[in-house]
Amino acid sequence: MDIYPTDESERVFNRAKAVIPGGIFGHYAGALGRPGPRFFSRSEGAHFWDVDGNEYIDYMCAYGPMILGYNNEVVDAAARAQYELGNTVSLAAPIMVELAELLVEKVAAADWALFGKNGGDSTGLAVRIARAATGRNKIVKIRDGYHGVAPWMMASTGDPRFEAGTISEDAAHVIEIPWNDLAALRQVVSDHRDDVACFISSPYDHPVLRDNTLPAEGYWREVEAVCRQNGVTLIIDEVRSGFRINLGGANVSYGFTPDMICFGKALGNGYPISALVGSDALKEAAQGVFYTGTQFFNAAPMAAAKATVEALFAADAASQMTSTGQALNDGLVNVAHQQGFELVASGVPAMPYFRLANVDMETHFRWVDECVKRGVYFLGYHNHFVSTVHGQADMERTFEVANEAFVALRESTD
Amino acid sequence: MDIYPTDESERVFNRAKAVIPGGIFGHYAGALGRPGPRFFSRSEGAHFWDVDGNEYIDYMCAYGPMILGYNNEVVDAAARAQYELGNTVSLAAPIMVELAELLVEKVAAADWALFGKNGGDSTGLAVRIARAATGRNKIVKIRDGYHGVAPWMMASTGDPRFEAGTISEDAAHVIEIPWNDLAALRQVVSDHRDDVACFISSPYDHPVLRDNTLPAEGYWREVEAVCRQNGVTLIIDEVRSGFRINLGGANVSYGFTPDMICFGKALGNGYPISALVGSDALKEAAQGVFYTGTQFFNAAPMAAAKATVEALFAADAASQMTSTGQALNDGLVNVAHQQGFELVASGVPAMPYFRLANVDMETHFRWVDECVKRGVYFLGYHNHFVSTVHGQADMERTFEVANEAFVALRESTD
Repeated sequence: MDIYPTDESERVFNRAKAVIPGGIFGHYAGALGRPGPRFFSRSEGAHFWDVDGNEYIDYMCAYGPMILGYNNEVVDAAARAQYELGNTVSLAAPIMVELAELLVEKVAAADWALFGKNGGDSTGLAVRIARAATGRNKIVKIRDGYHGVAPWMMASTGDPRFEAGTISEDAAHVIEIPWNDLAALRQVVSDHRDDVACFISSPYDHPVLRDNTLPAEGYWREVEAVCRQNGVTLIIDEVRSGFRINLGGANVSYGFTPDMICFGKALGNGYPISALVGSDALKEAAQGVFYTGTQFFNAAPMAAAKATVEALFAADAASQMTSTGQALNDGLVNVAHQQGFELVASGVPAMPYFRLANVDMETHFRWVDECVKRGVYFLGYHNHFVSTVHGQADMERTFEVANEAFVALRESTD
Repeated sequence: MDIYPTDESERVFNRAKAVIPGGIFGHYAGALGRPGPRFFSRSEGAHFWDVDGNEYIDYMCAYGPMILGYNNEVVDAAARAQYELGNTVSLAAPIMVELAELLVEKVAAADWALFGKNGGDSTGLAVRIARAATGRNKIVKIRDGYHGVAPWMMASTGDPRFEAGTISEDAAHVIEIPWNDLAALRQVVSDHRDDVACFISSPYDHPVLRDNTLPAEGYWREVEAVCRQNGVTLIIDEVRSGFRINLGGANVSYGFTPDMICFGKALGNGYPISALVGSDALKEAAQGVFYTGTQFFNAAPMAAAKATVEALFAADAASQMTSTGQALNDGLVNVAHQQGFELVASGVPAMPYFRLANVDMETHFRWVDECVKRGVYFLGYHNHFVSTVHGQADMERTFEVANEAFVALRESTD
């Protein structure tokens, strides 16, 4: 197979560095440490093309938003129809109500919804509602759990790359505990009796740079019990996992009921919208927290989200993506094994995190580089995403590329 | 003239209340205390229609984003072309670089740009960059100055409606001073020598519920000098005023150079995008602050923003809107006078704040209600916005409606 050239990407990147700090910023800068494409030229289905014209099977799905395929006709038509009526106007649009009604109908834990743009809008609102509802201060979160770039989040990482620009007060009342550690949760609640406002966590642990971990059997039911017994608001951050574990909320699969769920990413299949949904018990507190943004009332992304959610349910999409992800994992593990490597796939199947076992991280990264150079867009340090449009042909091609990448890896190591 | 019915708005609003806390939230809820339409059905040019089919001349412009007219063909075509290529993909698009290059070329104080969705993304980033660059803690802001709903902002308002869900630590290191008060600024800088990271302010004072105030002669030049002498980062929040005072930045009109400018609202003519621009001296600090969001890399709003900025410059739009706003103010003041009222128009002409003098606020609100009921969309407590497409016919109709509203006000008062 040909190795992809990325000269045009580099050329655009050099222009970018002149006018944008770092050239590319935020989570999109995470891939800059490795060779690979920097800018896309177009996208379609499960594929994108870079500015050098190379085609990629995309297992990042824009870091989650793409779930029904890039340029999905149904979603785009819904957005376009609303754009023709109006998008950002001095009043809200009825589509906002229709979308809220749909989420309340389809998401088990939802009695109401509020809309923003990014997942961080939803997580920031959720912790404010929890503090307002409880009159308490403390936020308990999972170590390395990511809930956006707000100061309360960044300041509590203990990592200078994330703490820059925060003040020590930002981390006041934020307490981190390990994943799957009920004893630690009980201890924190006991240590800060009557001052824990909320426990916020993704439904399973999907940090960067290490294996992802599912909840232990019975974990969430026990977490729910601890929260209920102690008046702690239970917030599930499904910004990343939303609609890829269970369309009605990951909690349905794990057998518990949170007080609020944060959605984002896949909700609009790439149109910018996030949502916080919650229980009736918190509706008054939610109304009392001032939450807004110029763009929160954009009607076209709401139309896109309604079309996306309807299409996901029509396709039983979470089950479908779980099957696709499982087949991807099985195939890659098999290819690795045939080439004398051990590949570990962790996390939920629709969002697999890959790691080559028994080698150093640089070797794993180099295998990823070799896949990228041949048109399979993986990232070494982050979970991946599948969509409803990753098909059999994509999978077969992926296994071919993965195989060649292992050969190249071995040749370069020998 | 006919009085507009709003039955369908009320019907949709009642559905909304069942599934959205408060029915309508955030700044869009600000109008709920008065009669009037609640939901739009379509928009075009300077007008929108509500769900009852009533047509309005819109002087809120979606609270600022609409600047070239709703459903502007050029902007929509640019966004649509980018949507067809791809919007939210696993890589950034070259349009991000083109937009940054355009802002650096056109905005006097801009050597670089970073993009977000809402103005609050830009203001939050700006204060973090200032803290990172200076290693200092304190944020100095203007009393009642609004820079989004982040906890540092809301907690420092002293207003229970905004403080809900914040903690006392959120307001640590935030200091408010009165507008146009150089002595207060000097005092704060002296009191907290070596700990003031930044001064953040809109270019003129546009609070709600009271007259807006322009900078005193020489104010900004003196502020700039105080900041330079004391190593204080000067941040101008043009989220609301951007492109309506001076296309190259309000500071060009007021004769000074800030370190950073926050843009939002009008930047994309209704497509969701915000930007922070800044000086080369802060580029490294900006690169060191982790700033991201799922939707920050949406390419279509960037294409819309590029088309918007180009169209604004081609039309010398700030001058044009200033003339339009001045004509609107003069006409309304004149109509009021003829009907025995005194109308005060404050702020910059393209963003007029209206107040009926010598009457209580309720009377002013009732005059606004009478305008709204006849198809002129004003708000009683907030500055208005004009656009490049508010034309002579709109103006004449506005004066007719304003006149009838004064007659109705007098009749209801008699």
